[in-house]
Amino acid sequence: MPKGQPATVPDDGLTTRQRRNRPLLMVHTGDGKGKSTAAFGLALRGWNQGWSVAVFQFVKSAKWRLGEQTAFETLGDLHTERGTGGPIEWHKMGSGWSWSRKDGTEEDHAAAALAGWREIQRRLAAEQHGLYVLDEFTYPIGWGWIDADEVVQTLATRPGHQHVVITGRRAHPALIEAADLVTEMTKIKHPMDAGQKGQKGIEW
Amino acid sequence: MPKGQPATVPDDGLTTRQRRNRPLLMVHTGDGKGKSTAAFGLALRGWNQGWSVAVFQFVKSAKWRLGEQTAFETLGDLHTERGTGGPIEWHKMGSGWSWSRKDGTEEDHAAAALAGWREIQRRLAAEQHGLYVLDEFTYPIGWGWIDADEVVQTLATRPGHQHVVITGRRAHPALIEAADLVTEMTKIKHPMDAGQKGQKGIEW
Repeated sequence: MPKGQPATVPDDGLTTRQRRNRPLLMVHTGDGKGKSTAAFGLALRGWNQGWSVAVFQFVKSAKWRLGEQTAFETLGDLHTERGTGGPIEWHKMGSGWSWSRKDGTEEDHAAAALAGWREIQRRLAAEQHGLYVLDEFTYPIGWGWIDADEVVQTLATRPGHQHVVITGRRAHPALIEAADLVTEMTKIKHPMDAGQKGQKGIEW
Repeated sequence: MPKGQPATVPDDGLTTRQRRNRPLLMVHTGDGKGKSTAAFGLALRGWNQGWSVAVFQFVKSAKWRLGEQTAFETLGDLHTERGTGGPIEWHKMGSGWSWSRKDGTEEDHAAAALAGWREIQRRLAAEQHGLYVLDEFTYPIGWGWIDADEVVQTLATRPGHQHVVITGRRAHPALIEAADLVTEMTKIKHPMDAGQKGQKGIEW
């Protein structure tokens, strides 16, 4: 459990409080399950803290994670109606980014992914959110659609106190290097190995 | 992403639909972060499906995961008030199990853990919930407070359609063997390595 003493105390001129409150770049990678699910769990915690939480899903399918989206939109409504928790935004490449004039028929996924990243850059510069979930963001980086060094540079120089969590397999080494916290989810056993397909409530 | 074809189709006499809808035993283990967080992400998805979700935290601290607890209690209220999502129950060993007459001063953690497991057995037999989150449940098993073979036997013979997710480090081999889905969360990098302590909204 995480409340132990740090192994080393760095010589960075910061107090424990300053160090504790640094904004984090977190990466969930590996071939196992739970990368996105754990990121949404973090988003739940952020919502509870009253943070502005924004999810950006770099996926083609508009149906992907519809269950989580519905749950978070309900939580976002609670913020609007009662002031409980924080505001939630959920953006999805697969249905066309909500701020874009283009409809969901956008065929050029590379251009759509880059447009998503440009929007995230604008929001980071404007300190718009407390937590950014960049779901499946490792793929457009891996495919060369978005430049890894530019991502690292933008994240390293982001102003204020904005947490970022990035999910997806095969995270770029530069991203791993830049991250404060990296967890690898490894598949030990999966129902698909026993011939079982995904099911409602578990996989989506 | 999980919607592919299974690698093998087992000769178990079940249709794909029957196999798909089998209740799952899931284990999140390993030394990395995200084990509990991913389990709570699953719980969120279960809530959205309208399942009855019950969380049992086998932890000593009554403050552990207070953020998630608050968020889930809000979601449970939404079910009561509007019929949105499913009902949520959140039980914690650290403050004395809510169904127990004992107050939070219970000193015998082994007895408290076993009492928690007995209650879970009763509920499984009664098919009380759609999803059980047994958070940090590997520890009382590892310490010999709860018998691993009995746990496996109970879970293997549970009736109906009840999903179970168990979290914690060093999951017992019998549990790994019995599970349908096992994910190991491995720490690649953690802020504590750089002398940073946990912070609100991220660690709890």
